[in-house]
Formats: sequence, C-alpha cells, structure tokens
Amino acid sequence: MAQKLGPDARKAALSKLEGWADVPGRDAITKTFVFKNFNAAFGFMTRAALVAEKMDHHPEWFNVYKTVEVTLATHDAGGVTALDIKLAEAMDRIAGS
Amino acid sequence: MAQKLGPDARKAALSKLEGWADVPGRDAITKTFVFKNFNAAFGFMTRAALVAEKMDHHPEWFNVYKTVEVTLATHDAGGVTALDIKLAEAMDRIAGS
Repeated sequence: MAQKLGPDARKAALSKLEGWADVPGRDAITKTFVFKNFNAAFGFMTRAALVAEKMDHHPEWFNVYKTVEVTLATHDAGGVTALDIKLAEAMDRIAGS
Repeated sequence: MAQKLGPDARKAALSKLEGWADVPGRDAITKTFVFKNFNAAFGFMTRAALVAEKMDHHPEWFNVYKTVEVTLATHDAGGVTALDIKLAEAMDRIAGS
C-alpha cells in the first residue's frame, strides 16, 4: 500500500509540480486545468482516465465546459502519497502535450 | 436560443425523468449516477460527452471512482430549458444500456 508522504517529502514533491496546491482543510492536492474548449477538456480527461485506470488510482474531478478541477488523495492512506504525485505528473504531461 | 421552461412545463418534464431533482437555491436539475466501477462510470461520461458535444450543450459533472454527479442548466437562458431535458433523457438512456 502507498504510504502517506511526510511533510518534507510532500513539500519537495509539490515544489516540482506546476500549479498544484494543498486543499485547505483536507489532506489532498488540487489543480484547475483550463483548456480551449470542451473537446480539449474532455480529451484531457479521457487520456488521464486511461492512465488512472492503469494505475488503479483515480482522481476526483469536476468538469464544466473547458475547465477541469482535479483533486488527488489516496483514500486508503488518508492523505497524499507517491501515487498522487505520479498521477499529477501524468496529468501535467497530458495537459501540456 | 432555448427558452427557460415555465414552472408547469418544467414540472411535467421532470415527472417523466427518473431520479432527476431540482438543485436547491439554483435553477438547475441534478442526478447522481452510480456505476459498478470507474470503467463503467467513465464509459458513461464518454458516451454522454459525445452527445453533449453534438448538441453543443454541456453538463457540469463531478466524478469520483464509480459515481458521477451531474448538474444541468442552460447558462444563456438562466435556467432549465428543453436542451437540459433532452440531455438528461440521453444520459438516462446511456446509463441504462
């Protein structure tokens, strides 16, 4: 099982990601992606969904038109783990490509 | 442009849908779909996204694992229109198939 990151490991991991932030009042990280239109936003979600399913680690996400708000946490671990960082990195790669 | 449904038309339309309800404090309708797993939930979203894009009328939706919370409203009309009812019906058909 993935282990919850300690404060230092989490801070180091977050500093390497772009635009991800702590969720106030909850042990999770969040980022809002804004695309050109729905086609681009849902295309991102589809590619990210395939990665998430392969990892067996899924996001919480809210989509309205061209915006996708993502929240990542590892429920079993009660916080942010290396799995969340890995999924965040994958999402950044997908969004940037 | 789609016209906002009056109270009677809206009530009649909602009565024909299954599981859709008014959103408290907002002129919109909502339904929470629960599937077997993420594969089924995202499969539903993908099919619904294609319908929405074709209609040029898009949902607000939140997904976590096997659950999809959908909210429908027509922003330009400031409320629920026939477009929302049509998209709700399509989502019900997709979820039930």
